[in-house]
Amino acid sequence: MRRHNRTTLLRLLHVSGPSTRAMLATALGLNRSTIKTLVDGLAEAGVVEERVPRPGRGAGRPSLLVLPQPHAAVVLAVDLQVEHVAIALVGLGGQILGRNSWNLHGRTRTADEVITHVIESAAVLAGDLGVEPVAAGVSVPGVVRRADGYVHEAPNLRWTDVALGERLSSVLRIPILVGNDAELGAVAEHLRGAARGSSDAVYVSADVGVGGGVIAQGSSLRGGAGYVGEIGHMVIRPGGRACYCGSSGCWETEIGEAALCRALGLPEETPRGAILFELRELSRNPEEAASRLAEFAEWLTLGLVNVVNLLGPQLVVLGDLLTVLPESVLQPIAAEVRRRSLVSRAVGGTRIVSSALGADVKLLGAAEVAFEVVLDTV
Amino acid sequence: MRRHNRTTLLRLLHVSGPSTRAMLATALGLNRSTIKTLVDGLAEAGVVEERVPRPGRGAGRPSLLVLPQPHAAVVLAVDLQVEHVAIALVGLGGQILGRNSWNLHGRTRTADEVITHVIESAAVLAGDLGVEPVAAGVSVPGVVRRADGYVHEAPNLRWTDVALGERLSSVLRIPILVGNDAELGAVAEHLRGAARGSSDAVYVSADVGVGGGVIAQGSSLRGGAGYVGEIGHMVIRPGGRACYCGSSGCWETEIGEAALCRALGLPEETPRGAILFELRELSRNPEEAASRLAEFAEWLTLGLVNVVNLLGPQLVVLGDLLTVLPESVLQPIAAEVRRRSLVSRAVGGTRIVSSALGADVKLLGAAEVAFEVVLDTV
Repeated sequence: MRRHNRTTLLRLLHVSGPSTRAMLATALGLNRSTIKTLVDGLAEAGVVEERVPRPGRGAGRPSLLVLPQPHAAVVLAVDLQVEHVAIALVGLGGQILGRNSWNLHGRTRTADEVITHVIESAAVLAGDLGVEPVAAGVSVPGVVRRADGYVHEAPNLRWTDVALGERLSSVLRIPILVGNDAELGAVAEHLRGAARGSSDAVYVSADVGVGGGVIAQGSSLRGGAGYVGEIGHMVIRPGGRACYCGSSGCWETEIGEAALCRALGLPEETPRGAILFELRELSRNPEEAASRLAEFAEWLTLGLVNVVNLLGPQLVVLGDLLTVLPESVLQPIAAEVRRRSLVSRAVGGTRIVSSALGADVKLLGAAEVAFEVVLDTV
Repeated sequence: MRRHNRTTLLRLLHVSGPSTRAMLATALGLNRSTIKTLVDGLAEAGVVEERVPRPGRGAGRPSLLVLPQPHAAVVLAVDLQVEHVAIALVGLGGQILGRNSWNLHGRTRTADEVITHVIESAAVLAGDLGVEPVAAGVSVPGVVRRADGYVHEAPNLRWTDVALGERLSSVLRIPILVGNDAELGAVAEHLRGAARGSSDAVYVSADVGVGGGVIAQGSSLRGGAGYVGEIGHMVIRPGGRACYCGSSGCWETEIGEAALCRALGLPEETPRGAILFELRELSRNPEEAASRLAEFAEWLTLGLVNVVNLLGPQLVVLGDLLTVLPESVLQPIAAEVRRRSLVSRAVGGTRIVSSALGADVKLLGAAEVAFEVVLDTV
């Protein structure tokens, strides 16, 4: 019981940041003397520190502030993207202590090469910072079995049947948690981003691939065998473009990076920087933006209507490329989804917002799934 | 703790039927003396009965069989359909003790009239059987807030904003659980039907409306504010027929009863009996069936690919009209869904089967949600 309370308290500090003992007592429904015992124990172990807060306006002795100590537990976070790999060491409390990333644009990227590079870079980074990660989380843009980190298919990486979890853990000798990138994005937004406090939310991100993660009744939704769904392969345009997945007219073929390039009149292989430049330019002319991206916006809207009608979230968080769409394109979409979705109307109007965590969202999600298995051992 | 064990044991007997004490001990992970105390207590209260089973071939004294007593807890189940209302009194163990139903075809069916009729019929049925229901479950083909049984929209019934839970409980004076019909179908299939033992399953039913219920990680999936999703209003055919929901080209407009009539060359208002007759006739000629229903089958397939890609179930259970489609139409669909869905391939091939519970599925689901609140008070 005491162990359980300790883990709960630590999770709260980790996710919500520094807090007074009084606030911790209220949030956990425990009495002050229990909180004192727990905090004293954690302080003795160097997991938290207590500090006098900056003097406020209130009368009386200020309550001590309890701060999680980042170095008390460090995890490795890995974000495998199609053209980019990022790693970070993340401390208790969610702070990124150090990071490293490299570009894969145009280079080969076999699973072997990427795995070797991740292991070497992680060792260098840990050495530089003088820390030892106690678990690792890995974000993969593909179909992943959560139980053992087996990557079934990551088509945009051209990976098939890679025992990623097993391979990393055999070298790193720490627990490895591998997740689908959109699922981890949803986890991060739920704990630290735009979906904080929302028990039913969907995170949709469009990059080269399109994916989605679902938070249902406060936790991450998974299907059979621990696989998460693939929102990007919802058929939205029957008879549309062939998709590598074996189907055609998938949402990914209509709102992924290549589709956005087509909508903008750019070649499909345009580098990300040039796409962002074009979108920024276009934002200066709202009417032109709305008209040039009208069809793109319609496919985005249709898919969102389906996501809302199937899952009934209160909130949809848009990530990656969807966050840089011009306002004149994004704005009408929420109203249109509400108009066309009877479930949105029922839940009082599903809100549609942009990601609050930017490019780090999947890295932070990867860190969080690693912390899940770490906090009760700190 | 003892109260908790008692409820768990009772739930097991209720769902899985008569069992020996030895089997109960194994299933619950409790020792025999604990089971004995629990069973003795339940037997004394008249909730279970112990009987000597029919002699088997094994040696030794036969283990006593523990049987739930149907009259120990009776719930009222109500299934509101578009043209049909059914009520039943269901006893502990899931047995239907008595039932009553009436047709609404062509008649008015205001919420007031239906509610009054349900209350009166339930009283008559309870009187006839000499039982008193202790809770009621109600299945509604519409968007329902589970917390208080508020019906937001039940378009095919032409109900909007009906405080059904409140109105029934103010008269019946028992807990009233109102659920979306497809959700309750999923619950019933999960506990007593084709999805038994499957932790991740989707139930899809096509009647006048099309709906779906999702079992994720063993329990019923709901979105914000307790609303379940509306699979039938997934847009499957952009630019297709206008749907009453405010969207167009919904799955319901392509695989609902009206769409099936169109596919069969029948008028949209054809009575159910004539549709079934036509389907039976067509089944005698498999090739003609496959060809006449080819387009219908394609929309069914597309929607199933989406359901599987979004939710990753191991199993999809088809209900209502979908169960009476000719085999030559149904058979190829499972293979086609597998071919086009990368998530199906990942989970090892989502199985697609027909409902095992027939016309009673929603009635049984309604009974089960009522039993959920009853078993710990028996």
